[in-house]
Amino acid sequence: MNIVKLRANLEKNLILHLDLISPNNEFKKIYTYALLPPGKLFRPLLALSIHLDFAHNNLEFFNPNEPVSLLASALEIHHAYTLIHDDLPSMDNDDYRRGKLSTHKKYGQWQAILAGDGLLNASYYLLSCIDSPQTPKIIKIISHFLGPKGLIDGQVIDLSENKKLFPHILKMHELKTSRLIQCAIMASYLLSTDKPNWRTFIDLLQLGKHLGIVFQFLDDLSELNCKKISKHESNINPWLNYLEPSYNYLQKSLDTIHHLTRKHHLDCFRSVINEYLHKNQKIISDGQLVIETHLKNQNILMPIMNRLDIISKA
Amino acid sequence: MNIVKLRANLEKNLILHLDLISPNNEFKKIYTYALLPPGKLFRPLLALSIHLDFAHNNLEFFNPNEPVSLLASALEIHHAYTLIHDDLPSMDNDDYRRGKLSTHKKYGQWQAILAGDGLLNASYYLLSCIDSPQTPKIIKIISHFLGPKGLIDGQVIDLSENKKLFPHILKMHELKTSRLIQCAIMASYLLSTDKPNWRTFIDLLQLGKHLGIVFQFLDDLSELNCKKISKHESNINPWLNYLEPSYNYLQKSLDTIHHLTRKHHLDCFRSVINEYLHKNQKIISDGQLVIETHLKNQNILMPIMNRLDIISKA
Repeated sequence: MNIVKLRANLEKNLILHLDLISPNNEFKKIYTYALLPPGKLFRPLLALSIHLDFAHNNLEFFNPNEPVSLLASALEIHHAYTLIHDDLPSMDNDDYRRGKLSTHKKYGQWQAILAGDGLLNASYYLLSCIDSPQTPKIIKIISHFLGPKGLIDGQVIDLSENKKLFPHILKMHELKTSRLIQCAIMASYLLSTDKPNWRTFIDLLQLGKHLGIVFQFLDDLSELNCKKISKHESNINPWLNYLEPSYNYLQKSLDTIHHLTRKHHLDCFRSVINEYLHKNQKIISDGQLVIETHLKNQNILMPIMNRLDIISKA
Repeated sequence: MNIVKLRANLEKNLILHLDLISPNNEFKKIYTYALLPPGKLFRPLLALSIHLDFAHNNLEFFNPNEPVSLLASALEIHHAYTLIHDDLPSMDNDDYRRGKLSTHKKYGQWQAILAGDGLLNASYYLLSCIDSPQTPKIIKIISHFLGPKGLIDGQVIDLSENKKLFPHILKMHELKTSRLIQCAIMASYLLSTDKPNWRTFIDLLQLGKHLGIVFQFLDDLSELNCKKISKHESNINPWLNYLEPSYNYLQKSLDTIHHLTRKHHLDCFRSVINEYLHKNQKIISDGQLVIETHLKNQNILMPIMNRLDIISKA
């Protein structure tokens, strides 16, 4: 499986879908700015790889009208809306995103709020274009997972003032990060099999949950690769406040991912996450000295890097 | 048809649906604050009345799981999200809404942004719960009508700095106000008939378009019932800048509504809009002196009020 080729194809489809949903006026450039050039396309890649693993179909997804193509763009567009709103001054107040000005810094606040709202609606439009008997069920699960009891609740926990206990941090990561990843895996599975198996479905939800938490824990670790840590960061970064539980949970999640991907023969899916784990391992390894200063523990990074190394090559 | 009873029933269902979508924590009170006590429930009432006119079914909608009940709450919840975001400081910057503090004034900005995002997702969740073969089509039309090319584009036109020409004002009203009304009518029609008729569908879209524009033109007229007019208001109020075209367009729209509701025997629907037109006629009549000062024309209000009087009694 050629990830570079898959990513290029996802980007091509994303451009076509962006064109489909955008108004023919000045505001189109704001939607384009927020979506292109795309990030890693991690969630669309997860959806595609699950499709390849279950449908054993190598070609279909090159067509932008295929169910999994529409799903992939809908996930990326939904993700983009959360980033635009997250960056707003009253939220995380970030001036930069992916090496360029955040949408509100570039175009203004009301423009960023409306662009986010527009993309959020548009992600449901793309889902509703999926020609499959599973479409209503998929929209139901996705809107539940990403709504007030799901992703939004995770953002609420994130922004709430008080210092978080370890179970709250786990809950926050599960809601804010795992839910969208679970949507990618679960919806792609439903679209790729004629008779979805209930136990497989549950396993895939578990897989998505742990992948999201690994994603976030490794990201939190990378955040420590700078000399000065912000107050918000020191409040929410689990590695600063709960070093051992974080270490143990990360190991446990990596094990679960390893086990479940083997059990269901998710070879394409593994290629995607291995690329991701490998990149993370490199980032952490490059920042080892600075990160270890913040952790005040020099015996914890090496086992993590070794584990990532073993798993990403398994 | 007893509108008071229908409204009470809609409110009861809305409370149940709010409970269904809300997380079991502190943030629930923000969703509740933004939705309850409800406003006029105009859009849900439109959906219900269309259901009564086409399905000839008087009882079903009392059940919160009925398609039209879920549609009604989804419309109100979608409407509530647009109001929360519209009120934000970088948007319309309104401190009050329905006689109480706006959501961001009461709870803070990030809370209001996330509450809006949460309700937006939740409106699609309720739509996806509709047990009907029409569900994917309805979600497709609604997400298109309320997305970047629809309602959102209307908000963009509204907030854009430059003074608007009359066709731009019409376009803005059609997108920002008519689209959601069209969703109410059109989706309820699709859920109420076994074999939707294409020509009826087109007529209903026209009806929704003109109802939205009448709604907005009468609202714009009521806005002139105060001595000092804000700069933004004087930029966008069509009665101040395009008196005669506004007058003509309002008359034309009222005629179209009258014609189409007769043609399709929309008696329940007429009861709902007659109540609305009657209320508006009273508001305008009460503010007649102040409004006429702003219009610099004393011969234009009386024919409008007479027309509203005739139509609302027809």
